[in-house]
Amino acid sequence: MSSTIITLTTDFGEGSPYVAAMKGVIYGINPDVTVVDITHSIPAQDVVHGAEILRDYTPLFPAGTIHAVVVDPGVGTARSIIYAQVGNQHYILPDNGLLGLLVETCPITQCITVENDRYWRLPVSATFHGRDIIAPTAAHISLGVEPQTLGTSREKLVFLENSQPEVTHRMIRGRVVSIDSFGNLITNIHSSLFTGRATDESLCVVCGLYETWGLHCTYGDVPDGLLVALIGSNGYMEIAITGGNAAARLGVGVGNMVTAAWEI
Amino acid sequence: MSSTIITLTTDFGEGSPYVAAMKGVIYGINPDVTVVDITHSIPAQDVVHGAEILRDYTPLFPAGTIHAVVVDPGVGTARSIIYAQVGNQHYILPDNGLLGLLVETCPITQCITVENDRYWRLPVSATFHGRDIIAPTAAHISLGVEPQTLGTSREKLVFLENSQPEVTHRMIRGRVVSIDSFGNLITNIHSSLFTGRATDESLCVVCGLYETWGLHCTYGDVPDGLLVALIGSNGYMEIAITGGNAAARLGVGVGNMVTAAWEI
Amino acid sequence: MSSTIITLTTDFGEGSPYVAAMKGVIYGINPDVTVVDITHSIPAQDVVHGAEILRDYTPLFPAGTIHAVVVDPGVGTARSIIYAQVGNQHYILPDNGLLGLLVETCPITQCITVENDRYWRLPVSATFHGRDIIAPTAAHISLGVEPQTLGTSREKLVFLENSQPEVTHRMIRGRVVSIDSFGNLITNIHSSLFTGRATDESLCVVCGLYETWGLHCTYGDVPDGLLVALIGSNGYMEIAITGGNAAARLGVGVGNMVTAAWEI
Repeated sequence: MSSTIITLTTDFGEGSPYVAAMKGVIYGINPDVTVVDITHSIPAQDVVHGAEILRDYTPLFPAGTIHAVVVDPGVGTARSIIYAQVGNQHYILPDNGLLGLLVETCPITQCITVENDRYWRLPVSATFHGRDIIAPTAAHISLGVEPQTLGTSREKLVFLENSQPEVTHRMIRGRVVSIDSFGNLITNIHSSLFTGRATDESLCVVCGLYETWGLHCTYGDVPDGLLVALIGSNGYMEIAITGGNAAARLGVGVGNMVTAAWEI
Repeated sequence: MSSTIITLTTDFGEGSPYVAAMKGVIYGINPDVTVVDITHSIPAQDVVHGAEILRDYTPLFPAGTIHAVVVDPGVGTARSIIYAQVGNQHYILPDNGLLGLLVETCPITQCITVENDRYWRLPVSATFHGRDIIAPTAAHISLGVEPQTLGTSREKLVFLENSQPEVTHRMIRGRVVSIDSFGNLITNIHSSLFTGRATDESLCVVCGLYETWGLHCTYGDVPDGLLVALIGSNGYMEIAITGGNAAARLGVGVGNMVTAAWEI
Repeated sequence: MSSTIITLTTDFGEGSPYVAAMKGVIYGINPDVTVVDITHSIPAQDVVHGAEILRDYTPLFPAGTIHAVVVDPGVGTARSIIYAQVGNQHYILPDNGLLGLLVETCPITQCITVENDRYWRLPVSATFHGRDIIAPTAAHISLGVEPQTLGTSREKLVFLENSQPEVTHRMIRGRVVSIDSFGNLITNIHSSLFTGRATDESLCVVCGLYETWGLHCTYGDVPDGLLVALIGSNGYMEIAITGGNAAARLGVGVGNMVTAAWEI
């Protein structure tokens, strides 16, 4: 196995030199690799949000890409770091549920506990396994190191909690998982949950103190300034204001509840 | 034609995973390309600001660079996506005026409506043409695809409105188009507008409730703490406070009016 | 000498197109170089903070890496721009103390005043030497230009002021130099200052209106919600709240004083 791209996804914040530390270590091992930032803006230690990013964005990368991920509330505790192959992509990350959403739709074909300190930066610090374990292990994988030399196989991953919308016959209740630069509210309610259900004006979408009716195709479907619910480019329901900022107008943030309900 | 650099300029915000989505698609088509971020901090849907960035920064890149730009208030409507060659650079972007300032100083030598979905990511979403049309088209161009295979030639571009300073014989009225990390106020008033005019103390520059006299060469020309107007490194008038933050002190933001006036 | 990596460290702010200007100039001279951002989030003109970043992060990069640094309160004045080799890394930066912390632990083996405008972008602007001198000089070095052709050797560097903790037999007084995305307060107090001193409960660490006792190994050593002082992954004392945000809780920012004191 060999790859030319390593991506980085962390909760370090944009511009954090911790990201540069990981890149320095990676280039020191494999100067020819291409390092790509997915995002460093995951809210601190928000594993569910990290899992959503991995599910939505990593499958867009070419086969063989190695994804190094650091959203790690358990650093310094007994949690494991794992290597996993999911679909045609490779992942090095803490075993804390980060793969929990991706594996719902994409088969995991190999999973190994990262134990072999031959590929680590020694001595390993207690607080920055991203630099000392995850980055150098990813770099060695990119050079062709066989994943089975990293450690022993494992069967089960840590379960991801509180990540799924609640679904009944008359409503779907999810949450806002991110807000884009336009103020659009991206939810965790996937379009597939609407299969076999009405998406016309009998559907009422409620967010904060506001509501809108029906599910639309694009922002331009309603006049400027009105609230609209639509299926966004990742397949998840979004709430937007055409020509405006829904997050600001509704006073809504990440984590807020969103409910789609039907008159039955 | 063949190029090794694709730049990205968007209003997605720094750290937006939408940027990573475009990179994933690009590397999936051409793993050997170099992707460079110009900025993702353009205010949402601010086409004039995007046009200023393209005019000021893209000509610094080597000949043959491909610039993929997504500032796209019209996504999902009938606006076109175009390929254009301007000077020795290539552009893939919505036809909404983004090239309006660049073409004032640099000849456009080819312009094509992007219509050939053979180079797109299918199915195309209604809301993210950056990922589904612009990124993959740019990647195919970087592989040597001939621009004329992208679609049909077009003659006219959409006009860019409200972008130019107002000029009379006794004043130039422009606006603040960006604020850098030092709080310097960058205007859209180019140094060439001062040709043949006095730049000594007979010139009064007004911004917000403050005024300063004369046009200086560098920040160090005046004592610390004083307001100074000067021509910045891009050739546009800036308003600064030596050793201080002009934006904070003047209470001024992007869009504020700036006037240079002469006693006649 | 030849290198494939140029890093950029500036106070321009994340997403600043000034960074893209430097990259455009670099790729125009050497299209095959790899450009890596260390950070652009250094507080405006904070040379001490820049010096800390260079000391802590640049040595992680492979031998031969070229670090281009722009934290330059003296741009437009008589300050020099220098090339220096420190350890196995190369630096192009203003001579204003930026190397002052790195050279305490790592030998400087060559230092040259950058004077040869053959490697510059002409005409040089008065306000953006990063684009016009530092970036093109770094790019030419990456192509194999010999450093001694850049200008004349110099013996002394500008001294870095106010950068070191105050140390007495009963206390160490430093300051918060950065805050990471988790709200941990990173200080300039290195672990070596604790050699031969007690790190048990007889040590009292004071920051703002709060205090904590003893120096711990990792965040998990104390129950959630308590304040803890520990040595972080770079070897410097940090103040954290397990599962919480120390900066927000203590109301503390960059520059605040931190004191480690012992009962004698």
